[in-house]
Amino acid sequence: MAKKPKNAISPTRAENYPEWYQQVVKAADLAEPSDVRGCMVIKPWGYAIWENIQRRLDAMFKATGHENAYFPLFIPMSFLEKEAEHVEGFAKECAVVTHHRLEPDPDGGLRPAPSAKLEEPLIVRPTSETIIGATFSRWIESYRDLPILINQWANVVRWELRTRMFLRTAEFLWQEGHTVHATADEAQQETRLMLDVYAQFAEETMAMPVIKGEKTEGERFPGAIATYSIEAMMQNRKALQAGTSHFLGQNFAKAQEIKFQDQSGDQVYAWTTSWGVSTRLVGALIMAHSDDDGLVLPPKLAPAHVVILPIYKSDEERTEVLSYCESLKESLAAERYDNEPVRVRIDDRDMRGGEKKWQWVKRGVPIRIEVGPRDVAAGKVFAAKRDVGGKGEGVVRDEFISTVSSTLAEIQQIIFDRAASARQEATAKIDTLEDFKTFFADSAPGGLAYCHFVDGPEMEAELKQLKVTARCVPIDGEDEAGKCIFTGQASPRRGVFARAY
Amino acid sequence: MAKKPKNAISPTRAENYPEWYQQVVKAADLAEPSDVRGCMVIKPWGYAIWENIQRRLDAMFKATGHENAYFPLFIPMSFLEKEAEHVEGFAKECAVVTHHRLEPDPDGGLRPAPSAKLEEPLIVRPTSETIIGATFSRWIESYRDLPILINQWANVVRWELRTRMFLRTAEFLWQEGHTVHATADEAQQETRLMLDVYAQFAEETMAMPVIKGEKTEGERFPGAIATYSIEAMMQNRKALQAGTSHFLGQNFAKAQEIKFQDQSGDQVYAWTTSWGVSTRLVGALIMAHSDDDGLVLPPKLAPAHVVILPIYKSDEERTEVLSYCESLKESLAAERYDNEPVRVRIDDRDMRGGEKKWQWVKRGVPIRIEVGPRDVAAGKVFAAKRDVGGKGEGVVRDEFISTVSSTLAEIQQIIFDRAASARQEATAKIDTLEDFKTFFADSAPGGLAYCHFVDGPEMEAELKQLKVTARCVPIDGEDEAGKCIFTGQASPRRGVFARAY
Repeated sequence: MAKKPKNAISPTRAENYPEWYQQVVKAADLAEPSDVRGCMVIKPWGYAIWENIQRRLDAMFKATGHENAYFPLFIPMSFLEKEAEHVEGFAKECAVVTHHRLEPDPDGGLRPAPSAKLEEPLIVRPTSETIIGATFSRWIESYRDLPILINQWANVVRWELRTRMFLRTAEFLWQEGHTVHATADEAQQETRLMLDVYAQFAEETMAMPVIKGEKTEGERFPGAIATYSIEAMMQNRKALQAGTSHFLGQNFAKAQEIKFQDQSGDQVYAWTTSWGVSTRLVGALIMAHSDDDGLVLPPKLAPAHVVILPIYKSDEERTEVLSYCESLKESLAAERYDNEPVRVRIDDRDMRGGEKKWQWVKRGVPIRIEVGPRDVAAGKVFAAKRDVGGKGEGVVRDEFISTVSSTLAEIQQIIFDRAASARQEATAKIDTLEDFKTFFADSAPGGLAYCHFVDGPEMEAELKQLKVTARCVPIDGEDEAGKCIFTGQASPRRGVFARAY
Repeated sequence: MAKKPKNAISPTRAENYPEWYQQVVKAADLAEPSDVRGCMVIKPWGYAIWENIQRRLDAMFKATGHENAYFPLFIPMSFLEKEAEHVEGFAKECAVVTHHRLEPDPDGGLRPAPSAKLEEPLIVRPTSETIIGATFSRWIESYRDLPILINQWANVVRWELRTRMFLRTAEFLWQEGHTVHATADEAQQETRLMLDVYAQFAEETMAMPVIKGEKTEGERFPGAIATYSIEAMMQNRKALQAGTSHFLGQNFAKAQEIKFQDQSGDQVYAWTTSWGVSTRLVGALIMAHSDDDGLVLPPKLAPAHVVILPIYKSDEERTEVLSYCESLKESLAAERYDNEPVRVRIDDRDMRGGEKKWQWVKRGVPIRIEVGPRDVAAGKVFAAKRDVGGKGEGVVRDEFISTVSSTLAEIQQIIFDRAASARQEATAKIDTLEDFKTFFADSAPGGLAYCHFVDGPEMEAELKQLKVTARCVPIDGEDEAGKCIFTGQASPRRGVFARAY
């Protein structure tokens, strides 16, 4: 057994949180920068987490009546000109396709062929409200065609200047839901339903407590009437917006001519919504749970629940140990956790035991098992749980198998509870601007401040100064009359303020 | 019951096959043209078929040791300049990104911002050998890092001038496998293994018999040493390449510097493969099985195995009939077909019964059930199988439920057998150029011609004249000495020739 280094990840969270994050991504083999500026390569271990996220969310979308479809990657430039706020918010930094052919250039290389210039440039979708809206306008004739409940899994591109893996990249993977309804009320219900789906997923599957709330005007999606989000807190006490759901009113319906004949025979505009989460969730997952030894994965999303490391010296030992491991794997895979078979891997790669062990600690596998000849003889396994830093103990084989599912459930709960109490500790009700400034002072740990506020230029100016943002007005908050800490005006309800990603 | 129209699809296959195809796509609600030239919208019913294809193939890839990952959408132009044949084959018609920002133009619209011109244009991936190869070169140091077995599910863009839904579109969805091996032999084995996976999938899941074979030189993937394909025959006796697997030798390894230290400590180039299938498979599925009433789906890929249409007049009947249907649905969904629960939908939309029935016939659902008050009283269902044109009969409820799985298996087999005998009928061994010309005469039905040949300009000229292509040299073919029908030269083995998509 290799001696435990002080910490597997350097720097630690306390030393340098942003750099710790990059090192965890690297040490867990989740992703790496690519040869294309701002785009990342998602490596197999990172992609397997995303696949688990996709599979779970997809089932929740389908259970709430949505169907998947696929729309073009490109958006004609003129489509972006139609919804004024939307173009302002989205048309700026994007990938613009102007040619459809390359040709040899005089220097022996290639160049875009001048003869193949597009009449109208195409934009690589930064989001698809416009192109999907134009399609919906052809699908809908009467109220009988409503609601339309569609989701798309896709890649999108927003040309970001400063990128960070998973959190902000030029290209990212996401899902975007787009729905059309006959009434404002139905569309609002849909917006809130999907916010609930996101919150349930974040808490029950990602083990990440979130606040559901409505965004202030300045933080709304460009073109939306109301934007709701789920907000999570990372271990450095910064907030992270983990999913959004938008009530678009009739804005996009008017821009894209989404009309229908209602029950009285009149042609009226429809009401639309959109909602999305992205590979950013993987970044949130990392920052919510990981420690100074690397990634900590909630079992429900772990690509492997259990990894088995066989330990042997001679060929004879190898045969004996591997056969014990194979049988163990089979028995474990016959157990079920969270409605799926337990996911088990045997890692028999030829490398030093200590190095191998630490690879799996850094990759966040919930349970690591080591099996040597003595364990085989005693009918035992050496089992270590990642949530308690990977320390382990000898357990009788059959007992380990019969309790594996409840152990995984316990780990999932412990990880959630830990994140919830970290958030609890970092949360404060603040009633004066002075206290607010103290709370967000550079020397203070910061956190989530619940304050009375009235949106406006005074607040915006103070927040800008402090590099703090209004996260949302919590839906589950209490009505409580108070005074805006920025202006003294009357306020009916507290909002949440934090530094944020 | 609405009277059966002569045929649900007009024109019929015999009248105008290409137009019949477009009408089936439309009538089955699979896809439609989009607002972007050459790109299609894949509608929910079409996308659900693709999801079933994905789920099945993905499981087969994982069972053969592959992992999924994700690489950038964009490829720097200079990457395409590195592999000479590859650039010749792929760099021509593609989407070129030249700017990263839009700005208001003087006319009140938008334009690519001249100040945001990229130093190096980016190409939207037409395929990813170059960018993935460059990544692999960083992953690999020694023979211990090999093999690398990666798959990517992604969208790709090839600027096509003449497009046809699913068969040839500018943007399409696909998977691309990319693997790296220490020896030529291992890479060749991988190439053939994945060809076998594709063939097994086509035959067992798509119910579509295929020929596995090697492509002739002119039909090889640009940059490959050998290209293998599976070739299917459509009902108009044209061939369709349904999947390809490429042995790339060291060509891409040399262009992308994919080197490793071998067991003797020498730095050597690795051996790579790539393999892919795309949404083109949906086009193949349609053309292999559908009839003049619309889509015919093999049960293994059908988004719904059984659709239940309740029939009633009064509210009282409605309650009674719907409750019977719900219980029927539940019992059917508890049955399993092909290792998954039977997929059942109730369609209770408010529309004319005849129109509704024909919608499901045109959409190709394997089994349609109609339930009226008399069926409820008698404990029966009226069940119709799509493979026999949708004619139905009354069946005792419990008998229907207990046999649903075997009925679906029968339908799957019938569809395969029908495609196999159509191919058998259209296949001929041809030994003279004269017979070859007769076989492919405009007045003849055409088909698959097995001929001795020697690749070369004589053959190419004749084939071009006849609009016939060399499909492949079948792997399962016999060694049989003969003479090339084009030149009279000695030939060791027959190839397959056909008109093709």
